Amino acid sequence: MNYKMIGKFTSLILMAEALFMIPALIIGLCLGEKSAISFLISIGIIFAVAVPLWLIGRKTDRRFSARDGFICVGLGWFMMSLGGALPFFISEEIPHFVDALFETVSGFTTTGSSILPNPELLSRSILYWRSFTHWIGGMGVLVFLLAIVPLGGGNQGFTMHLLRAESPGPEVGKLMPKMRQTAAVLYSVYITITILDIVFLLFGKMPLFDAVCTAFGTVGTGGFGVKIDSLASYSPYIQTVTTVFMTLCGVNFSCYYLLLLRNFTSVLKDEELRLYLGLIIGSTALIAINIRHLFPWNEAIRHAAFQVSSIITTTGFATTDFDLWPSLSKAILFALMIVGACAGSTGGGLKCARALLLFKGLKRNVSQMLRPNKIKTVRVNERTVDEKILANTNAYFATYILILIISFVLVSIGNDFSTGTNFSAVVSCFNNIGPGFEAVGPTCNFASYGVFSKCVLIFDMLAGRLEIFPLIILFSPKAWTSK
Amino acid sequence: MNYKMIGKFTSLILMAEALFMIPALIIGLCLGEKSAISFLISIGIIFAVAVPLWLIGRKTDRRFSARDGFICVGLGWFMMSLGGALPFFISEEIPHFVDALFETVSGFTTTGSSILPNPELLSRSILYWRSFTHWIGGMGVLVFLLAIVPLGGGNQGFTMHLLRAESPGPEVGKLMPKMRQTAAVLYSVYITITILDIVFLLFGKMPLFDAVCTAFGTVGTGGFGVKIDSLASYSPYIQTVTTVFMTLCGVNFSCYYLLLLRNFTSVLKDEELRLYLGLIIGSTALIAINIRHLFPWNEAIRHAAFQVSSIITTTGFATTDFDLWPSLSKAILFALMIVGACAGSTGGGLKCARALLLFKGLKRNVSQMLRPNKIKTVRVNERTVDEKILANTNAYFATYILILIISFVLVSIGNDFSTGTNFSAVVSCFNNIGPGFEAVGPTCNFASYGVFSKCVLIFDMLAGRLEIFPLIILFSPKAWTSK
Repeated sequence: MNYKMIGKFTSLILMAEALFMIPALIIGLCLGEKSAISFLISIGIIFAVAVPLWLIGRKTDRRFSARDGFICVGLGWFMMSLGGALPFFISEEIPHFVDALFETVSGFTTTGSSILPNPELLSRSILYWRSFTHWIGGMGVLVFLLAIVPLGGGNQGFTMHLLRAESPGPEVGKLMPKMRQTAAVLYSVYITITILDIVFLLFGKMPLFDAVCTAFGTVGTGGFGVKIDSLASYSPYIQTVTTVFMTLCGVNFSCYYLLLLRNFTSVLKDEELRLYLGLIIGSTALIAINIRHLFPWNEAIRHAAFQVSSIITTTGFATTDFDLWPSLSKAILFALMIVGACAGSTGGGLKCARALLLFKGLKRNVSQMLRPNKIKTVRVNERTVDEKILANTNAYFATYILILIISFVLVSIGNDFSTGTNFSAVVSCFNNIGPGFEAVGPTCNFASYGVFSKCVLIFDMLAGRLEIFPLIILFSPKAWTSK
Repeated sequence: MNYKMIGKFTSLILMAEALFMIPALIIGLCLGEKSAISFLISIGIIFAVAVPLWLIGRKTDRRFSARDGFICVGLGWFMMSLGGALPFFISEEIPHFVDALFETVSGFTTTGSSILPNPELLSRSILYWRSFTHWIGGMGVLVFLLAIVPLGGGNQGFTMHLLRAESPGPEVGKLMPKMRQTAAVLYSVYITITILDIVFLLFGKMPLFDAVCTAFGTVGTGGFGVKIDSLASYSPYIQTVTTVFMTLCGVNFSCYYLLLLRNFTSVLKDEELRLYLGLIIGSTALIAINIRHLFPWNEAIRHAAFQVSSIITTTGFATTDFDLWPSLSKAILFALMIVGACAGSTGGGLKCARALLLFKGLKRNVSQMLRPNKIKTVRVNERTVDEKILANTNAYFATYILILIISFVLVSIGNDFSTGTNFSAVVSCFNNIGPGFEAVGPTCNFASYGVFSKCVLIFDMLAGRLEIFPLIILFSPKAWTSK
């Protein structure tokens, strides 16, 4: 194993994180908040860890295996979460370290589950940092590093390993011949959408601070709000803008790149995109009909559309307490929690691409049973899908469900929440959504869980964001014994 | 498609069912119950349908495809359920036909979910028939037919198709060179265990009628009791006997055959059996510790052991309201619901053999990721598992979860139960268990669901018992268009 290289990467991630803390530090200094000092101390601690790692790992050979890639990503994200929790903990605005870590992991993984009963009590700089973690985690910090630093010195296989481990979805599309260019394109689109969202929110007379933080939560599909009632008290215009931008950020970002290249037909014919939009429209219609006795028609549609995009993109904002909706609406939202957004977006969950493959694979298996002598293949976007990808998707889904069930049992240790609460807490964290149902519903929070349950949920959030394997490998003894 | 052959099979199944109704008819006549007439009418109706089918299908060629096998099983079970519902409906002891069908399907599939608030109100002959459906469905009616009728006239491939479609588990073991002998061995073991159970229950001073019905529910791993409180009011001895027999019937029946052949080492080394017993012992210990504040130690262990075997074997009897237990205990029971019993037993669920394959497959995938150049295989019982079986297991699990999620959304239409209630109702029916949690917990019943939800649950129970594909194929338009 290339320990030096892993050390070098971790140090790069930590240094990037320290730089990302500077805007929050400036806000704190400008507003004269006490918490500014905690950012200074945090940056100091992070550099104190990162610089020696950098010095040790600076000169290393370039041999780098898939295993090293997974460990880099798993360990990098874990270290980044530890570092990101420092300001919360040092400022004492979240006095327990596990709580601070929970909040940070929830931020970076764009989950949005909170242990805070009321975020309005936080200082501005801390609130900014909390929302900014969503934006950092949304597109991925390694993608960011790839975009700005010549990592691996042109070793394509190596950057591929990293990008594959951090990027969501069954396949990593290579937009450009070089991974570095791909990463730069992704970040450019990401920044553009963020700025557009802020501008639209400002048009709706949202205060600048709220607009920036809400945009971070929306574009990163995170879900941390700045108010106790999430987005309920904002105007219908702002809720509609957020609905649109959540939906946009659940789309595979390579679609935007194709649009820039004026390749409209590929985008229009994309089966994953069609499934994603179909699910949003269909679910919105069904839920709007199902909740029509609770609201006037226009409000029913607005709330339904908002909640559907918020859940399918795994953002987790709320405009109303959907835990009070009829059971059909809740069941639809629950199913959308698992499906999730498109691959290659900032959203989490299983991903529409995988759902499509699972469904088409099932259809194929049934017709194969009926006609055992006729070989049938699965086709997506007019291309035959490799059997290996199909098998991997099934295996991924099986692993996903196994972890879900085991986590559910572990989370239930030492609390007396209902089965619905514990199960939805795990589903929500593992799919990086935010709210669940019942005692972890949209008006509640995760504070009352014990330390052990919180640690399980922290694992689930990271496993969900990094698509399971980098996290499992981190805990596998085999990974740490050299060949 | 060989329509004639399918007709012939359906008629055979129906005639066997009519014969199975005779004991209930005799009980009704002896006790002078009004319901005796309903059995007479039902037998008449069943023969009126079966005899013409037999006459049409009598002379047919022996070409029989896998598709025909699946359709035979799916259609056969559905027709058998319609026939079995007749006595309940005609006697008006269950006045609505969908309710009668639900109760019958729940019986044949050995689920044990009931729409009756109080089974004690039923007449004896109807109560007997209700419990007897478990016994018929437990080992399978086609296995029974194979054991007594020379079906297919020595066409092994053809009987294999049938047995494979009806028998649970990822692989059908061929105990004997001929399928007919295998079926006979299975039924001999089944009858022996049933008689032993009855004898042990009679030793505990259980009335003969109760003992016979309870034994049917136990050995078929069904779960219909004869009392309103399931097994709660019986003595600890009877509860313990039932615990032991439930556990015995969750074991792969080929283990008993191997024991008869004095092949003890194969049984002791069987990895599925070890997993199954390990899960029972581990879960019992954990739950006993978790509920120790509710009962004295000996009772805690007894209740824990009873509930664990009842759930893992998918029987569904209860000695206490486990819905009131702490959430860890409920979470463990929930996980066991999905794992289920051993393949080749009378129990339902995913089956321990599949859980083992999924888990070993996951472990293999992780080490394959760590060392991509080293080819690793999965081994069970010291034999390498074919990659195709692994892939099929993953695909089966994916299909299983897809159906679970879709059913959950459909069941939620038109009712206002909690997410926990609806989800556990689907999990319970699909895995052929019986009780769920909350409003379908062990002290409740399924009566308050609407007709549509009941139909979804009927589909789930049949799909669970027949391992999904015979039912999906029945609903697939492709199956009905000839080549």
